[in-house]
Amino acid sequence: MSTPDSNAILAGRVVEAIRSVIGTAPAALHEPRFNGNEWIYLKECLDSTFVSSVGKFVDRFESDLAAFTGARHAVAVVNGTAALHIAFMLAGVEPDDEVLVPALTFAATANAVAYCRAHPHFVDSTARNLGVDAEKLRNYLQENTEQRLGCCINRHSGRVIRALVPMHTFGHPGDLDALLAVSRDFNITLVEDAAESLGSYYHGRHTGTFGRMGTLSFNGNKTITTGGGGAILTNDSELARRAKHLTTTAKLPHAWEYRHDEIAYNYRLPNLNAALGCAQLEQLPDMLAAKRELFLRYKDAFKNVSGLRLVEEPANCVSNYWLQTIELAERDATLRDCLLTATNEQKVMTRPVWTLMSELPHFDSEPRMDLSCVEDLAQRLINIPSSPHLVAATS
Amino acid sequence: MSTPDSNAILAGRVVEAIRSVIGTAPAALHEPRFNGNEWIYLKECLDSTFVSSVGKFVDRFESDLAAFTGARHAVAVVNGTAALHIAFMLAGVEPDDEVLVPALTFAATANAVAYCRAHPHFVDSTARNLGVDAEKLRNYLQENTEQRLGCCINRHSGRVIRALVPMHTFGHPGDLDALLAVSRDFNITLVEDAAESLGSYYHGRHTGTFGRMGTLSFNGNKTITTGGGGAILTNDSELARRAKHLTTTAKLPHAWEYRHDEIAYNYRLPNLNAALGCAQLEQLPDMLAAKRELFLRYKDAFKNVSGLRLVEEPANCVSNYWLQTIELAERDATLRDCLLTATNEQKVMTRPVWTLMSELPHFDSEPRMDLSCVEDLAQRLINIPSSPHLVAATS
Repeated sequence: MSTPDSNAILAGRVVEAIRSVIGTAPAALHEPRFNGNEWIYLKECLDSTFVSSVGKFVDRFESDLAAFTGARHAVAVVNGTAALHIAFMLAGVEPDDEVLVPALTFAATANAVAYCRAHPHFVDSTARNLGVDAEKLRNYLQENTEQRLGCCINRHSGRVIRALVPMHTFGHPGDLDALLAVSRDFNITLVEDAAESLGSYYHGRHTGTFGRMGTLSFNGNKTITTGGGGAILTNDSELARRAKHLTTTAKLPHAWEYRHDEIAYNYRLPNLNAALGCAQLEQLPDMLAAKRELFLRYKDAFKNVSGLRLVEEPANCVSNYWLQTIELAERDATLRDCLLTATNEQKVMTRPVWTLMSELPHFDSEPRMDLSCVEDLAQRLINIPSSPHLVAATS
Repeated sequence: MSTPDSNAILAGRVVEAIRSVIGTAPAALHEPRFNGNEWIYLKECLDSTFVSSVGKFVDRFESDLAAFTGARHAVAVVNGTAALHIAFMLAGVEPDDEVLVPALTFAATANAVAYCRAHPHFVDSTARNLGVDAEKLRNYLQENTEQRLGCCINRHSGRVIRALVPMHTFGHPGDLDALLAVSRDFNITLVEDAAESLGSYYHGRHTGTFGRMGTLSFNGNKTITTGGGGAILTNDSELARRAKHLTTTAKLPHAWEYRHDEIAYNYRLPNLNAALGCAQLEQLPDMLAAKRELFLRYKDAFKNVSGLRLVEEPANCVSNYWLQTIELAERDATLRDCLLTATNEQKVMTRPVWTLMSELPHFDSEPRMDLSCVEDLAQRLINIPSSPHLVAATS
């Protein structure tokens, strides 16, 4: 049991441990750096006048992403939320369907379900990798669903459970083999929310390439950034073609005619943003190495701080260590908040996990399984400064 | 009546007239130029590391837009389509409502209605300014709607007609006084699609500031560009606050907590794109002057080409002359297509108007008034090269 005094002592030790790694300057949670060809490519982009919805950097960014991840196709879009929206549409999510999403995720995952006029159905995560608990999910589906005409039906709501969307939390790959087996056994399409896991591998293969589709994000706080941006990964050429069509207003190709053949979206990534992305992607291997080194240094610094552990990549996986994460030993909200206050007051930015989706008022009436593990975890996880350039600060 | 021979002769004269104004180099329909502070601001943006969803250029772009248009508030968003979507939501457009949109518009206007799960209801335009025919609309509403509980009800569908969305075609302001009167008399909220009319004024006041909200676009083909971008204009502080909240994932402000209070969107304009916008906006007065000069030169060049006229700004209005437009004298599709072929073959890019929304297969079953004027017009309008820098080519 923690007391105000023991809380303050632990908070002091945590600040000290972090400072020993990153130095004394104020530190954000995750900041980008532009030390490569960003400048050159942006200039090239301006000089070409192609800053908008088509251009060579969009094409190159897509093929570079495919090459890096090993996905057959990458379709660049305006942000990760848009990528999820279109991936769900192409996974066949229809109005009044349900989509299994972790309660522990950023709002975009659940919002994109709502854009399809479907219902997020919240599932629990495991402390092992902070991702969907495949075994608990399997048991839950066994008890609460039935198969009808090749669809998985929620016995309580009568609705089709169309898709399962594991999210690779803070870059740590989820249990993809077990999740794929659930997906197969219950006829639920797997779509990976890989927004946080560019550069993370499960059994040697890049996250986001296991599901029918995977989605990436290049928001400013991600490992690499395009300002705002995202992508859909898939190995299916027809899905890739459809994703491109739906994200580019469904305009039919023609020298001058403007004709569209379905209701669609303006989710194009501007060439200007893709130019930034191409330069950032060139530096990704170095950033990943620096983020891994940062993890090792934190691990060393925290080894004598009792009452917490640093979250490590799962067995047989490579994590990009997007956000370094402390897990407090015992559930105690006063300890967590004391730590958050102490660190942020000293300009060491830290953050708890997102408010669980299941606890947001607008998702109050959405279905959910028992969420006891993630409800406990949410009180005990804290993200600490994770920018790759922090390694340079003291080396 | 045109014949193949007379078509070819007219096509030759049109190419010659255009060439006499813009010179012999290939010409796109509308291309941006970056001759101001674009470079400096982009560099500043990279150096600050704030390239993403917040930053000083976003704030500045919003206040510069408000200052330029005279709107009390401008909320920057990721593109014009997103601006329309949110403006319709805030105008109270609900599932199964109808929204009056011109058949003559870009797909985004009608698509954004569909995003709200409402029905576009297509209305005719007048040849006078290519915008919604207010008098015809008034008569149509008189005959086909009734008032019930302060709402305008379509007698045939039984649905509420919630909003009216005039679009200022190619930059020419529509009949705003008459449209505002229709809006008032029939209890239909006016939202202006001003995507094409930045720098266009109706009776001395900037377009997009007459309706409850107005929307702008900064796509690559617009008068100024941010790569991709848009904005919502409004004089209502509460609507502006709501627009900001709904376009920024409805996150509640807090030092570290991540909590959202409604289903919302990731429609933020990245700071990188706003930096480009700030530099472009500084050059807008010069661009507008050049576009006006281009119009005058075209007018002079076409004065001896019989069988067509150049579309001019309406009385008491100032048009930005976004896209210069030829109107052919007689309806004859073979003449139009002959002209399009001849010009595009010679690298003078021209384009007919968009396929009318009412003729797209996915809007087949949506309601519409008699569209005879716009169906005729659509066969007779051709856009010709309109970039401001074309003025420099021969001066």
